[in-house]
Amino acid sequence: MICRKEIGLDGLAGGLMPGAIHLSMSTISSAAASLLASEHAQNGQGYVAAPVFGNPDAAKARQLFIVAAGTPADVERCQPILDILGQRTFVIGDDPAEANLVKLLGNMMSATALEMLGEVVAVVRKRGMKPQPFIDIMTSTMFGGRAHKIYGDKIAKQTYAPGFVLPLVLKDVRLALAEAENAGAPMPSVGVVRDRLITGIARGYAGLDWTALGLIAEEEAGLDPVPSVAADSPTAGAGVALKQS
Amino acid sequence: MICRKEIGLDGLAGGLMPGAIHLSMSTISSAAASLLASEHAQNGQGYVAAPVFGNPDAAKARQLFIVAAGTPADVERCQPILDILGQRTFVIGDDPAEANLVKLLGNMMSATALEMLGEVVAVVRKRGMKPQPFIDIMTSTMFGGRAHKIYGDKIAKQTYAPGFVLPLVLKDVRLALAEAENAGAPMPSVGVVRDRLITGIARGYAGLDWTALGLIAEEEAGLDPVPSVAADSPTAGAGVALKQS
Repeated sequence: MICRKEIGLDGLAGGLMPGAIHLSMSTISSAAASLLASEHAQNGQGYVAAPVFGNPDAAKARQLFIVAAGTPADVERCQPILDILGQRTFVIGDDPAEANLVKLLGNMMSATALEMLGEVVAVVRKRGMKPQPFIDIMTSTMFGGRAHKIYGDKIAKQTYAPGFVLPLVLKDVRLALAEAENAGAPMPSVGVVRDRLITGIARGYAGLDWTALGLIAEEEAGLDPVPSVAADSPTAGAGVALKQS
Repeated sequence: MICRKEIGLDGLAGGLMPGAIHLSMSTISSAAASLLASEHAQNGQGYVAAPVFGNPDAAKARQLFIVAAGTPADVERCQPILDILGQRTFVIGDDPAEANLVKLLGNMMSATALEMLGEVVAVVRKRGMKPQPFIDIMTSTMFGGRAHKIYGDKIAKQTYAPGFVLPLVLKDVRLALAEAENAGAPMPSVGVVRDRLITGIARGYAGLDWTALGLIAEEEAGLDPVPSVAADSPTAGAGVALKQS
């Protein structure tokens, strides 16, 4: 939660010249975005929300997708920066809060997709089948989008190196569930992910990527994937503390 | 559940000549597939499992994806038929049960994707935003696969005409949860869908498509989408009983 004091005249808004624009690409709540926009407006400053979709690899390759919102003139001033950072910018309107809501809900779609990939791959493994051919069929047919291709392969290969570590995912889950509560629209699928993240962090996986939802699903299925994680995956050398079997 | 009597010498297997192949494209449990394969083998007959991915529109356009398994010679004999029916066949091995498991798990990936699309669209609507631009951003970025494109648009447009009616979806959910239980690998995300389907059928939506997971999510968010369903969607003329507000 962002307090008024942090962004008022003592904080961000006070440190900027009138006419300046605060371009915020962080994943924050829609309420925090509205508060920031209001404080900056009172100080004659602009506020543009421009959260991004894409992992660090996508950022390095300038393949991020950006969802931007703010007053048209402010967004236009920021556009050259956004063009350098991402492959495409979606300008969705003049209310910064809506960009942050889209980002949080999009992240929840990815988180629940990861969770489900973890659940089905755990069943496949328990049946003695290899997960990669299963993932390949899914991503060649009904699930050919980036999220399923990128995360499906990582879950099949038990690759849990960050990326997007579990406590930060849980922060976004918490923000999204608060948005849902404030809107009066429950998201029970996200509740499943929340509990699995809590379990993962409790087991010492706070340093792992959200692909570790696959690791947690395997453990809930009685599989002990630690040896193969240690032997085969990039997490082995990443200084991540995994429990020893 | 298929009983031995139905497929033994008194049933399917008794009605086929030796050397015949039973090509089953139905969505059945892996245990039923194994039983069928075994009974047919004892009668000198072949059994090929070839369940499909794709909705009726895809079937009409010969765009189905087929997942086939059986002894190589049997699958080869069926291939000309499969080539006519689908756009691509994935031959995954000689155990028919595995094709049925892949089909059931794939359907659960679609069902949970529909559920999540319903949940996020309900939040978007409650916030006074239009769902179509949100869906367009999702399907232009991380979720560009067929499932999200086809079902995302239908949920945004409140299109619930079947398609794949809720009681048949619940049958598949039941089979998938039994596979998960037998494998010893829980699928809590599928449990969420199961409960929402039970609710939908209880409310009189048994004649609606599984896109009606979006309708149920809206109702759980206190929205009363019935008027727009009646006015705008193809279900209006489809003879589907919707509750009256």
